[in-house]
Amino acid sequence: MKYISLLGATGSIGQQTIDVVRNHPEQFSLVALSAGRNIDLVRTYINEFKPELVSVHTKEDCDTLKGEFGHEQMTFMYGEEGLVAVAIYEKASILVNAVIGSVGLGPTLQAIEAGKDIALANKETLVTAGHLVMNAVKQAGVQLLPVDSEHSAIFQALQGEQEKNIERLVITASGGSFRDRTREQLVGVTVEEALNHPNWSMGAKITIDSASMMNKGLEVIEAHWLFDLPYEQIDVLLHRESVIHSMVEFHDSSVMAQLGTPDMRVPIQYALTYPDRLPLVGRKRLNLADFSKLHFAEMDFDRYPCLRYAYDAGKMGGTMPTVLNAANEAAVAVFLAGQISFLDIEMLIEQAMNRHQVIAHPDLTTIREVDQETRQLIHTLLKKR
Amino acid sequence: MKYISLLGATGSIGQQTIDVVRNHPEQFSLVALSAGRNIDLVRTYINEFKPELVSVHTKEDCDTLKGEFGHEQMTFMYGEEGLVAVAIYEKASILVNAVIGSVGLGPTLQAIEAGKDIALANKETLVTAGHLVMNAVKQAGVQLLPVDSEHSAIFQALQGEQEKNIERLVITASGGSFRDRTREQLVGVTVEEALNHPNWSMGAKITIDSASMMNKGLEVIEAHWLFDLPYEQIDVLLHRESVIHSMVEFHDSSVMAQLGTPDMRVPIQYALTYPDRLPLVGRKRLNLADFSKLHFAEMDFDRYPCLRYAYDAGKMGGTMPTVLNAANEAAVAVFLAGQISFLDIEMLIEQAMNRHQVIAHPDLTTIREVDQETRQLIHTLLKKR
Repeated sequence: MKYISLLGATGSIGQQTIDVVRNHPEQFSLVALSAGRNIDLVRTYINEFKPELVSVHTKEDCDTLKGEFGHEQMTFMYGEEGLVAVAIYEKASILVNAVIGSVGLGPTLQAIEAGKDIALANKETLVTAGHLVMNAVKQAGVQLLPVDSEHSAIFQALQGEQEKNIERLVITASGGSFRDRTREQLVGVTVEEALNHPNWSMGAKITIDSASMMNKGLEVIEAHWLFDLPYEQIDVLLHRESVIHSMVEFHDSSVMAQLGTPDMRVPIQYALTYPDRLPLVGRKRLNLADFSKLHFAEMDFDRYPCLRYAYDAGKMGGTMPTVLNAANEAAVAVFLAGQISFLDIEMLIEQAMNRHQVIAHPDLTTIREVDQETRQLIHTLLKKR
Repeated sequence: MKYISLLGATGSIGQQTIDVVRNHPEQFSLVALSAGRNIDLVRTYINEFKPELVSVHTKEDCDTLKGEFGHEQMTFMYGEEGLVAVAIYEKASILVNAVIGSVGLGPTLQAIEAGKDIALANKETLVTAGHLVMNAVKQAGVQLLPVDSEHSAIFQALQGEQEKNIERLVITASGGSFRDRTREQLVGVTVEEALNHPNWSMGAKITIDSASMMNKGLEVIEAHWLFDLPYEQIDVLLHRESVIHSMVEFHDSSVMAQLGTPDMRVPIQYALTYPDRLPLVGRKRLNLADFSKLHFAEMDFDRYPCLRYAYDAGKMGGTMPTVLNAANEAAVAVFLAGQISFLDIEMLIEQAMNRHQVIAHPDLTTIREVDQETRQLIHTLLKKR
């Protein structure tokens, strides 16, 4: 039995993690979970899984749940303290981190220090502080298992292989919701249009990131840290159908790829069963003949400047990826709130990066300060307009 | 240093094996080789690699080479005895078997019993006597490493994986030289047309087998033995570009695939370096954007009856795959000699199978008898016409 704690239980990845746990009760037990404000869903999880620790966003929701479930052997917490308590919950051997944004960094680092393996769907954690996370992983001797479909694909392709033989990674990109538009046609697009991803059903933030190609940029930085490769060995390829989730080219010219239907439960479950696999309940099997054709094209860095910014930030290193990520998180939030246009997102990120003086080898405090300053800057830039 | 013996050194796979050895003199040493009648090429190999044992087809060629190279520390042999001597040559730790046809069976079995690992390009060996070969491999505790690009792809995709988790294998098929013709358009095709494979430059026999789809049928039977899976878990998919060399689907719905350019040196070298890899000298890197599109379609068993015969023979088991293979070898030989039409190949195979009474669990003697009887039958059928 594998005991699991889960951060972000009511989000898209969280719900699919719940589904994996539900389908394999003989293998997995959910012992601790955190959620945001969707306490209706938290109630159903409590009834179904009887977790020992539950954390929500606000004190009010925490008190409400305590009142309802006070007779159960459960602990209820809230806020940052609750997140960390879930992350380091003693009985769990693995933490599934499915929160969105750099808020996941602190709990991840503490879970690693507490000896937990990490199934990481929270890519912003690696983007903003990859060096700290990977160093902590090394020190603690735990496993960091990717949950992003692209990184899971690469991780699967690397099984039985040696790092020294890698020529490059090829991360595939569907192109997102605006892939058939020119840059001129991006003027005036709506939030609803941006949220309409062609292949994957995902949370709002990642869907916007896909439309701007920032998601792929964050994934490039994530891959840099996860697989310990320079940016020159990480390429992005446009692939409309998202059937090939990503690839590894070796120096003998052999390319290993992982393919599948767009079902995030596959990488989630693989992270939980690794190095074994379990049957996926309710799976849709991939039949390439159904597609008839798969399409591939070179990435266009002029069409998708956010991807260029991400490579630039990654190569500059230090605090620059923190700026990239924080500016993007802040800009996407105000875009989703209807306060800026889609093209403003990339403009704000570029401005934030241009104004930043890189600090090399930042510690956690510095990263948090730069993260906060960047978010503040975005709001200042918006007020000036 | 890995000491290598090579059967079939002057054929297509043999020459490419030589190229791999040539490019990595610090890793590989060719100590024994066999060839057929191309003794000009054998002479260049002798001068370049100074093998300790050389076997050719005829006594005359053997004597000629002895006369020329008698001053060297080399042994020269010929015929079946020479083949076996090369296969079991003591100094070699691995035998690359690149001969064509079931003639490779005896030397392979003897090499296995002598404790050699086998890099197998000679698929007819496994088709005609898979149970004997796999049993010998198990008894001797040696490695049987596939050199066919499809089986190497599957073998690579299985690294780090467990057999119990396999849902199915998917072997890709380009469709061969006549893939854009209907069955009606196969009437009267020439040998030259049949030898014009769209993707791979290979020997004559395998190119004809590709045009008839028998090659894929032999590969299905080969995969059955190599990976110990029932025929129901081995599928064939049409894929024009041969970029995806083959795939493994797991029961969590994840699909692992190996991709590459059409260069047989990749699977040859992988078999020699496994589980490591070495840079491939003069490699052409795969760039999927160059293709723009990859195509896939369901296999059509009416269009390609040879593939159906192969599945049938495999499922019937016993001596039936021996009949399938021997009938095919004999029929392809007379087609290449211009004595029958292309469509006669499948007709002769069908007739040979229809007339055969399966013998279960055949030993080596029975297999050899059935092989000879089947070849004789093909010639008898031809005389009657």
